[in-house]
Amino acid sequence: MSSTAGQVIRCRAAVAWEAGKPLVIEKVEVAPPQAMEVRLKILFTSLCHTDVYFWEAKGQTPMFPRIFGHEAGGIVESVGEGVTDLKPGDHVLPVFTGECKECAHCKSEESNMCDLLRINTDRGVMIGDGQSRFSINGKPIYHFVGTSTFSEYTVCHIGSVAKISPLAPLDKVCILSCGITTGLGAALNVAQPKKGSTVAVFGLGAVGLGAAEGARIAGASRIIGIDMNPKRFIEAKKFGITEFVNPKDHDKPVQEVLAEMTDGGVDRSIECTGNVNAMISAFECVHDGWGVAVLVGVPNKDDVFKTHPMNLLNERTLKGTFFGNYKPKSDLPSVVEMYMNKELDLEKFITHEISLSEINKAFEYMLGGDGLRCIIRMDS
Amino acid sequence: MSSTAGQVIRCRAAVAWEAGKPLVIEKVEVAPPQAMEVRLKILFTSLCHTDVYFWEAKGQTPMFPRIFGHEAGGIVESVGEGVTDLKPGDHVLPVFTGECKECAHCKSEESNMCDLLRINTDRGVMIGDGQSRFSINGKPIYHFVGTSTFSEYTVCHIGSVAKISPLAPLDKVCILSCGITTGLGAALNVAQPKKGSTVAVFGLGAVGLGAAEGARIAGASRIIGIDMNPKRFIEAKKFGITEFVNPKDHDKPVQEVLAEMTDGGVDRSIECTGNVNAMISAFECVHDGWGVAVLVGVPNKDDVFKTHPMNLLNERTLKGTFFGNYKPKSDLPSVVEMYMNKELDLEKFITHEISLSEINKAFEYMLGGDGLRCIIRMDS
Ligand SMILES: NC(=O)c1ccc[n+]([C@@H]2O[C@H](COP(=O)([O-])OP(=O)(O)OC[C@H]3O[C@@H](n4cnc5c(N)ncnc54)[C@H](O)[C@@H]3O)[C@@H](O)[C@H]2O)c1
Ligand SMILES: NC(=O)c1ccc[n+]([C@@H]2O[C@H](COP(=O)([O-])OP(=O)(O)OC[C@H]3O[C@@H](n4cnc5c(N)ncnc54)[C@H](O)[C@@H]3O)[C@@H](O)[C@H]2O)c1
Ligand SMILES: [Zn+2]
Ligand SMILES: [Zn+2]
Ligand SMILES: [Zn+2]
Ligand SMILES: [Zn+2]
Repeated sequence: MSSTAGQVIRCRAAVAWEAGKPLVIEKVEVAPPQAMEVRLKILFTSLCHTDVYFWEAKGQTPMFPRIFGHEAGGIVESVGEGVTDLKPGDHVLPVFTGECKECAHCKSEESNMCDLLRINTDRGVMIGDGQSRFSINGKPIYHFVGTSTFSEYTVCHIGSVAKISPLAPLDKVCILSCGITTGLGAALNVAQPKKGSTVAVFGLGAVGLGAAEGARIAGASRIIGIDMNPKRFIEAKKFGITEFVNPKDHDKPVQEVLAEMTDGGVDRSIECTGNVNAMISAFECVHDGWGVAVLVGVPNKDDVFKTHPMNLLNERTLKGTFFGNYKPKSDLPSVVEMYMNKELDLEKFITHEISLSEINKAFEYMLGGDGLRCIIRMDS
Repeated sequence: MSSTAGQVIRCRAAVAWEAGKPLVIEKVEVAPPQAMEVRLKILFTSLCHTDVYFWEAKGQTPMFPRIFGHEAGGIVESVGEGVTDLKPGDHVLPVFTGECKECAHCKSEESNMCDLLRINTDRGVMIGDGQSRFSINGKPIYHFVGTSTFSEYTVCHIGSVAKISPLAPLDKVCILSCGITTGLGAALNVAQPKKGSTVAVFGLGAVGLGAAEGARIAGASRIIGIDMNPKRFIEAKKFGITEFVNPKDHDKPVQEVLAEMTDGGVDRSIECTGNVNAMISAFECVHDGWGVAVLVGVPNKDDVFKTHPMNLLNERTLKGTFFGNYKPKSDLPSVVEMYMNKELDLEKFITHEISLSEINKAFEYMLGGDGLRCIIRMDS
């Protein structure tokens, strides 16, 4: 047992006091973990678009003060009552969604959408007792998606913590907590392109490039990247993408452009934009008879997906995925192993590295469309 | 070689001279098969909705005079040049779609939508030479979907003819040429329900009941039948359907009714109506995480399938199928074997039996919604 077990820990955290305002590094109190919870020492974290959306709180419920952050790597500091599958010293990745192992989804081989611990962006407290574990001078600070990794210590439900190999470098594998794994799984678990096949990836952010990486690993021989922002093509060249299409360069719908490039359509397509028109194009560009389209992007509330049913009857398949169909606790360790075995390349996703005190720079990079992932070191 | 080989055969056929007018039994001339064609002696045929749609020719291109019919069982009478995989005496089922074995679809394990022989309802002639093999006093009569089985003899492309066991009773297995196999395959090949799962079938015509039969064979423990016509529930009771829902009996959308009946949604749904609202309901009634919806019904030209993309992101799958994903030549023999092994029950689909001279009765039964399949005996 560590000497801090059972004690409140005082540590540094980046607190968002108001929507859209720079985070402030504060001393926060982190309460000990309760039943089925663990307290983690976070070593590395990175910034994802979802943090930025909820920090901006334009379409989302504002909930402040809050500690954001959900891509991270850390070490278990102490465990709460009843915790048997994690112990102090374990290397872990906290995840924005969880695995209770008891609900119908957790028991199904096909689903990872745990009834209990499925992402809930509107909950700012622990699921066990409805309380926050963070406070400043007794005033509670809200959690974010059960992870709140922009703090040197955080408390998570055990269902949202994946134990990984202690040999894995946490400053690299921390980026496997969210978007990159989502894209990777969308390709490897859901689209499942065959060796030698053609894959279209719509949207070349971290998620789309994760999907391209998955297509490369699966042995796709043509990976076509589609984005409206030509700047994205530069970074994307490192990802085995063999051709680029900017829909703005063409008068006809991009699905027709792709059908012409590929003799009738691509074998698989993966949509990673969140734009409903891209979703429709991604579906309609797959080949009849065998094409599979996978939707990953998160749409707006009022979006409607529309297509002629004949596009389906001609034996096209349309699917969506959440976290790339990976079960966070059961499957993340094997994704880490893929990196350790050099099957999966993570270095090319990491374009910046800063210390916690500079965290607002990570927001600037992301808002400016500069790079892919910025690692934030907690110890400096 | 039969004595008729190479000769024109004069025989009886039911000819549709005009849209919507009763068929007339005529003596027709049937020319010998050309390269890659076979001439079949048809023993039994049955009537399907698609015959009726093109005979009514309300939305479809009118093409008369024409010989309809595409569900049938027969025997090869003679073969054209270059035919090696069929010989006189072979027992066969002609099919409205084909398998050339050389195109990308035929070479793909996943597709049955042959580029060369895929259904073409607007072609009234042989694909080889653009001519008809039927005539009356030298005046050509149009073919229908490459089969034209309402004739004692017909000529088909070898790609549209499945050779089956000579032990199979043709008066039963003739109904496997189209709708029932389509529904069966939609369940067994595409929806693939697991043992013990819950399956919803929308539309309880022959196709929907074929799907219910497939769900039963796959081991589904709950099969819920949905139809707007309560008369359909009577016949359907023989098909292992355990519960019935008439959308008209409920104020809320039927997908919500089904979700309540099944703790969140069915595991698989199969739409066999052709109605786009039923297609949307069939998709939205499947469980998140693992549900799969399969569309079978043929929609209208201007129909639009609409849904919120979140329904997909929550890990639902939407697929369509053509002829139940069976490759006609490669796979139909094994469907016939399922019947021979008593896995598949066909008798319950056969509700009427008549002779060729009474063929217009079959149209009356179908238009009156009376029964499922009417076998037409050619020899009487
Ligand atoms: N399903 C999940 O589990 C999951 C997890 C993480 C992220 N996401 C979602 O994945 C999506 C991508 O995330 P990201 O971080 O890579 O975002 P990003 O903003 O970095 O990248 C999206 C890219 O899509 C491009 N784009 C937008 N509209 C387009 C269009 N119509 N056609 C072509 N390209 C278009 C943009 O130019 C941009 O480069 C987001 O919607 C995000 O919310 C989903
Ligand atoms: N994809 C293929 O390869 C293929 C092959 C054969 C037939 N089909 C199609 O399958 C469909 C069914 O064929 P069938 O011969 O069984 O037709 P059918 O007319 O006998 O049966 C259709 C049933 O659907 C019901 N229905 C209509 N609208 C409905 C709604 N909104 N909700 C619930 N039930 C509704 C009708 O009452 C009817 O009982 C047709 O569209 C046909 O064209 C497709
Ligand atoms: Zn669960
Ligand atoms: Zn994220
Ligand atoms: Zn073919
Ligand atoms: Zn038919």
